[in-house]
Amino acid sequence: MSDWVAKLAKSTPSRILLTVLDGLGGLPFNGHTELEQARTPNLDVLAKSSSLGALVPIEHGIAPGSGQAHIALFGYDPFAYQVGRGVLECLGVGLSPGQGDVCCRANFCNFDGQVVTSRRAVDQRGERMSTELCRELCGRLQKAFESGIEDVSVTVRSGEEHRFAVMFSGPGLEDGASDSDPGVEGLPPRQVEGSRVEKTARIANEFIRRSAEVLGSRKQANYVLLRGLGIRPQLPTFGERFRLRSVCVAAYPMYRGLAELVGMDVARDGRDDWLSQLDVLERVGKDYEFTFFHLKDTDKAGEDGLFERKVRLIERFDAEILPRLVAWGFDVLCLTGDHSTPSVMKKHSWHPVPVLLWSRYAMPEGSSAVFTERACLRGNLGVIYSRQLMGLLLAHAGKLDKFGA
Amino acid sequence: MSDWVAKLAKSTPSRILLTVLDGLGGLPFNGHTELEQARTPNLDVLAKSSSLGALVPIEHGIAPGSGQAHIALFGYDPFAYQVGRGVLECLGVGLSPGQGDVCCRANFCNFDGQVVTSRRAVDQRGERMSTELCRELCGRLQKAFESGIEDVSVTVRSGEEHRFAVMFSGPGLEDGASDSDPGVEGLPPRQVEGSRVEKTARIANEFIRRSAEVLGSRKQANYVLLRGLGIRPQLPTFGERFRLRSVCVAAYPMYRGLAELVGMDVARDGRDDWLSQLDVLERVGKDYEFTFFHLKDTDKAGEDGLFERKVRLIERFDAEILPRLVAWGFDVLCLTGDHSTPSVMKKHSWHPVPVLLWSRYAMPEGSSAVFTERACLRGNLGVIYSRQLMGLLLAHAGKLDKFGA
Repeated sequence: MSDWVAKLAKSTPSRILLTVLDGLGGLPFNGHTELEQARTPNLDVLAKSSSLGALVPIEHGIAPGSGQAHIALFGYDPFAYQVGRGVLECLGVGLSPGQGDVCCRANFCNFDGQVVTSRRAVDQRGERMSTELCRELCGRLQKAFESGIEDVSVTVRSGEEHRFAVMFSGPGLEDGASDSDPGVEGLPPRQVEGSRVEKTARIANEFIRRSAEVLGSRKQANYVLLRGLGIRPQLPTFGERFRLRSVCVAAYPMYRGLAELVGMDVARDGRDDWLSQLDVLERVGKDYEFTFFHLKDTDKAGEDGLFERKVRLIERFDAEILPRLVAWGFDVLCLTGDHSTPSVMKKHSWHPVPVLLWSRYAMPEGSSAVFTERACLRGNLGVIYSRQLMGLLLAHAGKLDKFGA
Repeated sequence: MSDWVAKLAKSTPSRILLTVLDGLGGLPFNGHTELEQARTPNLDVLAKSSSLGALVPIEHGIAPGSGQAHIALFGYDPFAYQVGRGVLECLGVGLSPGQGDVCCRANFCNFDGQVVTSRRAVDQRGERMSTELCRELCGRLQKAFESGIEDVSVTVRSGEEHRFAVMFSGPGLEDGASDSDPGVEGLPPRQVEGSRVEKTARIANEFIRRSAEVLGSRKQANYVLLRGLGIRPQLPTFGERFRLRSVCVAAYPMYRGLAELVGMDVARDGRDDWLSQLDVLERVGKDYEFTFFHLKDTDKAGEDGLFERKVRLIERFDAEILPRLVAWGFDVLCLTGDHSTPSVMKKHSWHPVPVLLWSRYAMPEGSSAVFTERACLRGNLGVIYSRQLMGLLLAHAGKLDKFGA
């Protein structure tokens, strides 16, 4: 399907806004979902003149990670184009992997010379490693690898707690090298290896060996583990496929990175709160035919099991953000999530995500509509796959030619 | 899907009626769609004992031409079987292209010896070419090519205004020759060409050259352009696939042509108004297990932006046609459109098309049902693809075997 949508896409001046409230969908707690509980007068008014529906992120029953959920929302087949864990980790710390760079998820661990005793490098009292220590050690590693390994440059960037990201850039690196992380404690670290990836494995193993030297004889965080080694997928760019100029407005590096992966421009002014993001959007929206606006906090509230916090965030979106989005004057205004994150589950789920699509040519829901999961499941757009959304957005913006004579 | 439906299809005496109100689906104007606005007491009664649903013609967001929309309704994959523009044009003027005949959309243009100055052959005052002149010139061309070109016979048939259709019939003609139409004015006409289509290109170019001689030194309509050169797709026939005898009752040549393409019989008595068509249907229905009944006017009203006219046509269908269709006694009675043509858009759209399916074995909607777009989107059949409808029609007629033991 997607290919045909791309083949029929044509360039027009109309403007599309795709707003993603991360992890938007929920489940009832005391009878009401987060969206049902929230007072959302602006959303409910907009719902009446919009079409509603529900998006199955990947496949019925499959809960997605954020990477694949966005790949699908951007109109790509999430099975054909997979963003590996290493690539996502690098995107998440703000790196921009180029074609052929090998990205790794990395973490500090405790190693007694024989086996990994703590994969999260907890200290002797069992406390988690601090992000501060992670930053300090990553700084030391980055300095130690200033001149790279062989002809390969090495980028080390700290994450949270024991986690960090490593990117190898240079000729002859390949996808498909194995993890050094044994996966459980009490086992020795593994060698990175794999058929036809000799150089990648050699560089990675050398990185691990020399890192251990740099970290020295300390007890906590004296060794590093690598996993998810991989290169970024080769995606046809969003702009070329759908014939539009596109921009991402997102506070979180990973989402900016995902947008970059598909070739969107990224706009920001360094401030990350919702209203500052909205300022950026209002400024750049006129220069693009497609704006992707990402708000993360709803997902975090869901992951933390904070039902009331997620309700408050939805209410804040309704009161402070939505009216300005509506007033801006997009030709197509779409609001959805990448996946559901029900607070009662504290994690991503497979439940179809509510979607609202406003345009002159949307079939309006009418006076009884509200924007909730259960109303959206009966909406005029039906229950469709996330990867089918782009076709609808383009159609409602007048950006698709007719199929056949 | 379609292949399995075909594999499970069995011959039984039960009779299916598929009535297509072309361009049936609409969008609201002053709050109500054409179907919502229309007084349709008979449809609404029938809806209560029928299943309702909505058909996505091709794919979410994709607005189809009439050809592909019908190919899908007939249970064929509209991506796999594409009817080109030249073939549709020939069907539309009533020609019946055989296997291997090359069909072209043709039009008269003004040519100053260097470039095409008007692709629509407008006269010096900027007026469109008359259909009368088109008929006259087509007559002259047909006469000039009476003995064909080489071993290829040539059929010329006039359309509306500057448009006409050309069909080349003879050995060794192939699909894939390029357009001679430069697509814009101010450019010279192109040569028809293409790899492995030497003979087709030679015949087409010779047709163009000799046509210019026939048309002579006149200023308006002194040259012809060809495009959409192609042969009809090789379709497994409808009757063989689904094991039934099928007939088309349609006033418009293109729809009769599409039905012929899939191997249906065509019944007509030469009169083209709705009631005459209905007479034909009532007469031939008993000889076939599948009757395709096509009514065009609703689409034309939508394309012309005539909301009230479309409303009146739906009301007329309800009052004059539907009761007789119901009374005839089909085992399965289905009413739908090939696509939506909202009057407010004045063109084909992607919006799912309402469908009503009455049979003894349909899950009835119950007492609150009405036949409108928004009711159908919530109907018991759900929102499905047009190409899935045939399976449901056959099933409700008892014409499908069980799948598996």
